Amino acid sequence: MVRLQARPTDADWLAAAARLAARGRPMSRPNPAVGCIIVKDGVVVGRGWTDVGGRPHAEAAALVQAGERARGATAYVTLEPCAHTSPRGPSCADLLVGAKIARVVIGSQDPDPRTAGSGIERLKSAGIETQVLASKEVDASLIGYLTRARYSRPFVTLKLALSLDGCIALANGESQWITGEEARAHVHSRRAMQDAILVGGGTWRADQPRLDVRLPGLENRSPRRIVLTRGVAPDGVTIINQPSQISRFDDLQYLYVEGGAQTAASFLSDDLVDRLEIYRAPIVIGGGKPALGDIGLASLARAHGRWEEVENRQLGSDRFTAYRRTRNEEG
Amino acid sequence: MVRLQARPTDADWLAAAARLAARGRPMSRPNPAVGCIIVKDGVVVGRGWTDVGGRPHAEAAALVQAGERARGATAYVTLEPCAHTSPRGPSCADLLVGAKIARVVIGSQDPDPRTAGSGIERLKSAGIETQVLASKEVDASLIGYLTRARYSRPFVTLKLALSLDGCIALANGESQWITGEEARAHVHSRRAMQDAILVGGGTWRADQPRLDVRLPGLENRSPRRIVLTRGVAPDGVTIINQPSQISRFDDLQYLYVEGGAQTAASFLSDDLVDRLEIYRAPIVIGGGKPALGDIGLASLARAHGRWEEVENRQLGSDRFTAYRRTRNEEG
Repeated sequence: MVRLQARPTDADWLAAAARLAARGRPMSRPNPAVGCIIVKDGVVVGRGWTDVGGRPHAEAAALVQAGERARGATAYVTLEPCAHTSPRGPSCADLLVGAKIARVVIGSQDPDPRTAGSGIERLKSAGIETQVLASKEVDASLIGYLTRARYSRPFVTLKLALSLDGCIALANGESQWITGEEARAHVHSRRAMQDAILVGGGTWRADQPRLDVRLPGLENRSPRRIVLTRGVAPDGVTIINQPSQISRFDDLQYLYVEGGAQTAASFLSDDLVDRLEIYRAPIVIGGGKPALGDIGLASLARAHGRWEEVENRQLGSDRFTAYRRTRNEEG
Repeated sequence: MVRLQARPTDADWLAAAARLAARGRPMSRPNPAVGCIIVKDGVVVGRGWTDVGGRPHAEAAALVQAGERARGATAYVTLEPCAHTSPRGPSCADLLVGAKIARVVIGSQDPDPRTAGSGIERLKSAGIETQVLASKEVDASLIGYLTRARYSRPFVTLKLALSLDGCIALANGESQWITGEEARAHVHSRRAMQDAILVGGGTWRADQPRLDVRLPGLENRSPRRIVLTRGVAPDGVTIINQPSQISRFDDLQYLYVEGGAQTAASFLSDDLVDRLEIYRAPIVIGGGKPALGDIGLASLARAHGRWEEVENRQLGSDRFTAYRRTRNEEG
């Protein structure tokens, strides 16, 4: 919400830094996409986000912009600044100290054991007022990175394109098209945010899907392709035999699962889906192919309380709804 | 929309009359639920809607309220006033003439051949300024009556309570409950608006559904029960053998079809569904019972362009979405 009269709060600045961070996704991999805003006397003097391949870091980019104006300013950064020097440059904590920043507000502590509090310590020991302020915008912007740290696997989004009665195709297999052009373009924009796309072997063989980003200017964003199969790997494609093997890939923060019904079911059955994105076309199929195979659900009671609607919007004649898996993230 | 400063337009008054008409549904049967507002010098002097069993008519009730103030006033009435006298009382056109109403604005001409323009003629010939003003609120309030006139059958609403993946039960048949309390209360309020509820023989035998209205004060609104079956009629229940036989019942303006999957499919397959009401619970079932059996759809292209979302709201944790069948109503 834009507040024209009130001064932005620390939470507002962090949310703005989270929006900047989104620009880094997914090209910052293997690093998390971080955002940084440097504010002096209520004026933004520097902005940065993690660049392609992970460097420069957001703080470094913002400090270059700010130059001398960084002295005495406040830096808002979505993730705890790194404290470890690397062959690729000095640590961000050292850069902030060197620039004589007066105050640092951090959206999330870094779970990376190489940092994990040492960035904050470094800032504090240099006399910089440093605080961590919880922010749901920041958590959302780092969800792939935080999911890796928590579960040693990427954040998994399952996409389904359905008729009103939950079918993904006619009984004869016809599936082009359930949804309209706007919804399909939206899928491509979602693909452009992922590190990898996964489909099942059956879908791969039946549809020969390109699984690429066909949006002007974003063609180079086409993510890595993974196929879930017990068969042999097709050309140019990585395979895994079971969903849990997604943890094998160290550089995956965001995985997009596009079906088919058995693959979707096996990810759900293993409780490996963090976000469900459903495109619903205003059509009725009746007796078509169901969206999901068996997920081993024993009773209806166990199905409740697991999903929460977090986004809902119209895309042409279709409706897009996203649900998040409501895990107890503290547990 | 409430406009605080502008004077209500004729369209606003008709919309208000349509809201009054809704109070008559469904107890006015076999008559349509009509609403009437009498306005003099910008002030409402009489309001009426069709009473239980169809009498008094809306105009008669509003005129009683208005009394002497009806002279020179404008009457807004959703349906063309009747012109035929009946043993149950004088015609509404005659009543309006007798009360010296100056102007009548009508939302819909009456397709009943006993009236069909003769009400308007009667008013005009008595020197009353009379006009028909199309109103989507009025059309919606009369949809059961207009559907009967157009297709010789009731307006059919198909209700589905689904998981996100379009299932109505687990594979083992467990279906209590998919949706929550708010959604179920909403279903009861919808039942209270119907003339009859229909389920298939399988659902009737399996679930022994009560199909009644369990809302405080509305218990007497429980509609007539119809079962679609080739078997024998259970006690207290009317049966039909195929969906098209719903046209047999002269007094049905609103029919509510509650499943199961084969019954829903047979109504869709015969293109007898005018409105689809879907309650979607934020749960995933996977491999459960699909909402619909085969509806004979030959290609996806033929599925498009038939349904339009007309209502969308949250009911507790469930989402209610209504779609209207986009027939060319002029055709």
